[in-house]
Amino acid sequence: MRAFASDNYAGVHPSIMKEIISVNSDDMSSYGNDPVSEAALELFAKHFGSDAKIFFMATGTATNTLILKHITNSWNSVICADTAHINVDECGAVEAVAGIKIAHAEAVHGKLSVESIAPLLAGRKDVHQSQPAVISITQNTELGTVYTLAEIKAICDYAHKHGLLVHMDGARLSNAAVALGTGFKEMTVDCGVDVLSFGGTKNGCMCAEAAVFINSKIGKDFEFVRKQGMQLISKMRYVGAQFKALLTDELWKENAARANELATLLAHKVQEVSEVKITRPVEANAVFAIVPPHVIPKLQEKFPFYVWDESASEVRWMTSWATTDQDIDNFVSALKTLI
Amino acid sequence: MRAFASDNYAGVHPSIMKEIISVNSDDMSSYGNDPVSEAALELFAKHFGSDAKIFFMATGTATNTLILKHITNSWNSVICADTAHINVDECGAVEAVAGIKIAHAEAVHGKLSVESIAPLLAGRKDVHQSQPAVISITQNTELGTVYTLAEIKAICDYAHKHGLLVHMDGARLSNAAVALGTGFKEMTVDCGVDVLSFGGTKNGCMCAEAAVFINSKIGKDFEFVRKQGMQLISKMRYVGAQFKALLTDELWKENAARANELATLLAHKVQEVSEVKITRPVEANAVFAIVPPHVIPKLQEKFPFYVWDESASEVRWMTSWATTDQDIDNFVSALKTLI
Amino acid sequence: MRAFASDNYAGVHPSIMKEIISVNSDDMSSYGNDPVSEAALELFAKHFGSDAKIFFMATGTATNTLILKHITNSWNSVICADTAHINVDECGAVEAVAGIKIAHAEAVHGKLSVESIAPLLAGRKDVHQSQPAVISITQNTELGTVYTLAEIKAICDYAHKHGLLVHMDGARLSNAAVALGTGFKEMTVDCGVDVLSFGGTKNGCMCAEAAVFINSKIGKDFEFVRKQGMQLISKMRYVGAQFKALLTDELWKENAARANELATLLAHKVQEVSEVKITRPVEANAVFAIVPPHVIPKLQEKFPFYVWDESASEVRWMTSWATTDQDIDNFVSALKTLI
Amino acid sequence: MRAFASDNYAGVHPSIMKEIISVNSDDMSSYGNDPVSEAALELFAKHFGSDAKIFFMATGTATNTLILKHITNSWNSVICADTAHINVDECGAVEAVAGIKIAHAEAVHGKLSVESIAPLLAGRKDVHQSQPAVISITQNTELGTVYTLAEIKAICDYAHKHGLLVHMDGARLSNAAVALGTGFKEMTVDCGVDVLSFGGTKNGCMCAEAAVFINSKIGKDFEFVRKQGMQLISKMRYVGAQFKALLTDELWKENAARANELATLLAHKVQEVSEVKITRPVEANAVFAIVPPHVIPKLQEKFPFYVWDESASEVRWMTSWATTDQDIDNFVSALKTLI
Repeated sequence: MRAFASDNYAGVHPSIMKEIISVNSDDMSSYGNDPVSEAALELFAKHFGSDAKIFFMATGTATNTLILKHITNSWNSVICADTAHINVDECGAVEAVAGIKIAHAEAVHGKLSVESIAPLLAGRKDVHQSQPAVISITQNTELGTVYTLAEIKAICDYAHKHGLLVHMDGARLSNAAVALGTGFKEMTVDCGVDVLSFGGTKNGCMCAEAAVFINSKIGKDFEFVRKQGMQLISKMRYVGAQFKALLTDELWKENAARANELATLLAHKVQEVSEVKITRPVEANAVFAIVPPHVIPKLQEKFPFYVWDESASEVRWMTSWATTDQDIDNFVSALKTLI
Repeated sequence: MRAFASDNYAGVHPSIMKEIISVNSDDMSSYGNDPVSEAALELFAKHFGSDAKIFFMATGTATNTLILKHITNSWNSVICADTAHINVDECGAVEAVAGIKIAHAEAVHGKLSVESIAPLLAGRKDVHQSQPAVISITQNTELGTVYTLAEIKAICDYAHKHGLLVHMDGARLSNAAVALGTGFKEMTVDCGVDVLSFGGTKNGCMCAEAAVFINSKIGKDFEFVRKQGMQLISKMRYVGAQFKALLTDELWKENAARANELATLLAHKVQEVSEVKITRPVEANAVFAIVPPHVIPKLQEKFPFYVWDESASEVRWMTSWATTDQDIDNFVSALKTLI
Repeated sequence: MRAFASDNYAGVHPSIMKEIISVNSDDMSSYGNDPVSEAALELFAKHFGSDAKIFFMATGTATNTLILKHITNSWNSVICADTAHINVDECGAVEAVAGIKIAHAEAVHGKLSVESIAPLLAGRKDVHQSQPAVISITQNTELGTVYTLAEIKAICDYAHKHGLLVHMDGARLSNAAVALGTGFKEMTVDCGVDVLSFGGTKNGCMCAEAAVFINSKIGKDFEFVRKQGMQLISKMRYVGAQFKALLTDELWKENAARANELATLLAHKVQEVSEVKITRPVEANAVFAIVPPHVIPKLQEKFPFYVWDESASEVRWMTSWATTDQDIDNFVSALKTLI
Repeated sequence: MRAFASDNYAGVHPSIMKEIISVNSDDMSSYGNDPVSEAALELFAKHFGSDAKIFFMATGTATNTLILKHITNSWNSVICADTAHINVDECGAVEAVAGIKIAHAEAVHGKLSVESIAPLLAGRKDVHQSQPAVISITQNTELGTVYTLAEIKAICDYAHKHGLLVHMDGARLSNAAVALGTGFKEMTVDCGVDVLSFGGTKNGCMCAEAAVFINSKIGKDFEFVRKQGMQLISKMRYVGAQFKALLTDELWKENAARANELATLLAHKVQEVSEVKITRPVEANAVFAIVPPHVIPKLQEKFPFYVWDESASEVRWMTSWATTDQDIDNFVSALKTLI
């Protein structure tokens, strides 16, 4: 089966599985005090600096939510795009667990801008209103678009000028880095991002996410938040192994590049089909398109994917590290046949 | 390295790793809607009945905490042993996430009794007091002891008579089942346990826990609690694979039996050493003993283990599925030499 | 000083103060088990039926928040107008204390409609999304408008058809009742409202709000929520006294009628001033108007009031039970002079 | 009716009621921005210094809970006596609202000591355990005893040495001050107490409590916590009036002295009755005694009071500012007659 539903439908990349197997020998200390996790942390430090505080986590929802819990007070709000994962895809975790309000701004193709953020700072200092403390941006966005370095920097500068922090939800950070032709550092540390949710799962891992506190003023004592937040994996070496493989020999880049290239190829090929209209810039590993409604269920039978906006007949097709050129051919053929 | 620190220092059992590898092929639906997870759920149903609601989770802390959150109201309390994992080892997750009070009773070798529970029901109906709603027992206990079926049934009967539910923290349920010579069902369903935290990680899995709602009146909508509780693993097939292997050909029993037998062997051998005094009944895979203080650090260098009660010089030694007869021999030799 | 800032700038109506004084004699049982509170509860029952569960509270924020906490699960959301008090004026209490998401809909002059609510029900049954469980409407609204009985009934019918409950934030319920020429029952019980925040403070009380559970299926055990929610006033007789006075001889109606009439009078008089433009229907005790910017600070010096929308130079003027005809004359004179 | 149930059965002292009436005239700014509240704050500053941050609150439970929420992180615990109000009389508010664990120590007649606190600091730095951050002491205690200045200072010194803060639950602080013959400052500021719940309600007010942050490093932004904590009374002037009266002409001292004296008188008189045995030092306004069981219900009919420990037939008799010598005579006569 090949799906275009989500990059989390893909399996584990062979190199990562190999590393998991290779650490499965002796007893090792649990909860991250093991040499595998330590080696993985060192690889992270190469990207984010030795001052960065890094914590491995089991899910992206937890990474986002617990970071936000840790860097806010209960009377704060977090500003994000209306389409942000933290707003629409985490079943209220931010409100229930972090206990803060989400103030969502309109966004163009999933991207916030200083202009869309500014009106949300109006009620500051008024005791009756939640106080904005964090701007959360998703890189790449839920709509397959990618913030440029200049856009990220502008938001960071604006945030810091107003005493806010910037969180980046990087569930697909590798795809964005490839799209921009940069490393992780240029997109985060160098732009002024304060804290990052680093995603491994969608890029070929089994279950590996990380909270990365870049700003040295935050992140202290997060180990207690992680434990209390029910995310302290006991046999942590297996998470460490995934990151070790992902960050070795630039496997992260290879995997993300494959996914991005195939999304571009897919976009290219469906553009030939006049009944299909691509609706968003294809900048990473997702293609959004309007498709004739009658085609959708039949195509989904062969290649699972999600309808994004039923009223507009807009669908989302995602590629992953595991997608092949042949998959794209098969998919587009099926699409053409159905149309 | 061989540790006696905790059964979570052990690696993943080869049969479980084999199953993980075997499901790593095509794309599969995420979030548990995959054939591997479904097969694992069917194996659970054989033990707990087809009415049981089962949810795979990433950590034991999450399993305990989210179950308790789901079956209580914020004004309730949960009664447990003072030594219970939920009371002393989860960094306040029950209070912070479930938002309820823990009312802990004194326990003999980690075991509650109707007599120790009864005084905690005194303040019922008084609006100023947290209202007890759940009794949580750990099987086997944090002190290596095992509730008999009659003891579990007595607590369940008492709980139900007073309108309370019974939760069993079964992080080491397999060890208890082997100790009692029963299956899971006899110890849970048949005794009246309402909801169970089923542990796989400590018994040879990588990262696999399950919430098992036995009482059909509870557990509805728990899928939202799991998601919001940041525990919905996207590539769930790999958790499903672990449980599939664990529950096939009674691997759970084989693994737990090995650990229990070696704890018994260890206890037997250290009893020969007159300077060492075993302090708790050895009923599963833990041995608690008082050891001359000067021996401890040196022994820990070779074989990591925890000091349980520093003032009493009492230590805990745990065995796992991976412990061997030779490990016991080496350990006892080292102990004797140091004494 | 006479303010047009808020009806909570007014003092306590003499009849209410008289009742407070009259109950200040002997010892009385605390926490609401006193004859004064009981008498007040009986007066409530005349309006809302003897099945209604009524709980006196200290603040409106608490009444709204704790009701919502009690009738939802943590994975639920509450639908309300973007201008709703629970969304913008309670410093995130709903998120922090009830732990649920607010899904706000656009509203015309503060009023929701079935059409504006419907799109928010799209993500039901999807485990990744907060599940709508309550529609909260404010009567009269934060913009001084009043839902008609037919509008309330339409929302209630829609809600119940989709398995949702309806909460009414009635901080100014008396003003709305007077505006519609009905009693409380017609606007709530008869329309299908499930639970009500009944406000006394803004209508001449000192500090008296009530949670009124009309739907007999909800509200059980709310006494624990109130206590844990830090709202169980010990010397409750003084709250009871306020409600007793307010609900005797229709003082609630007299007070609200005065406020409403004077808002109408104010609107009538300022309409004569061509530089002032009334922006919202004046249906209760608030007048919203666009005023020349240079006038605002000088007028505020004499008569405090709030700027509602700085960019539009829109202000809010509220009247209360204590406002007099003379106050309106003085205010309009000052306004005219300044213009 | 005269009750010995609780000092919150008493009404409002005439001088306080007079002040409430006197401020009931014009419109005033709400939420505490009024001259009455400001005058009351100035009186507080005379006792606690002009750096102290003071916030008026509606209930004692809220004052304790929101202070603790503000000065802790979610992974912290608060150490208190097992009998502390925050542990047994607030329906789990600390756990549900502050989200922290209560670590309760055994206490002698309600009083903690450095010796009873020390063992609770054992698990510090262990990520699996809640981290103690605050010691909360009740002055005077729930058992009618009073910490000496030296005892308070010893606990504060110990706390600060270990990086913990000290909270004092002063619901009956005035009674303690009278008992020790000191002012508020000597018992709090001078001993090193960091933050105080100052109680007015039980000492003759209607509904007036205050959070007093003495340590200048804490308390910042508490106005948001109060608002979100649903405690920002809109017509605050009436709370301000109560405190103004209480802190003028040492009314607080007069009221507390009366209550204390009558408790002493009561203790003196019941000591004559051989069947009655006083069980706790009578140091403030409570008398605990063992009374023949058959006497209790009949005596309660005439004079309401609470049974403290049913198994021991131990009762609690409290006096208040409103109790008279005649009340004591009547009570003791009734007691003697029944025996």
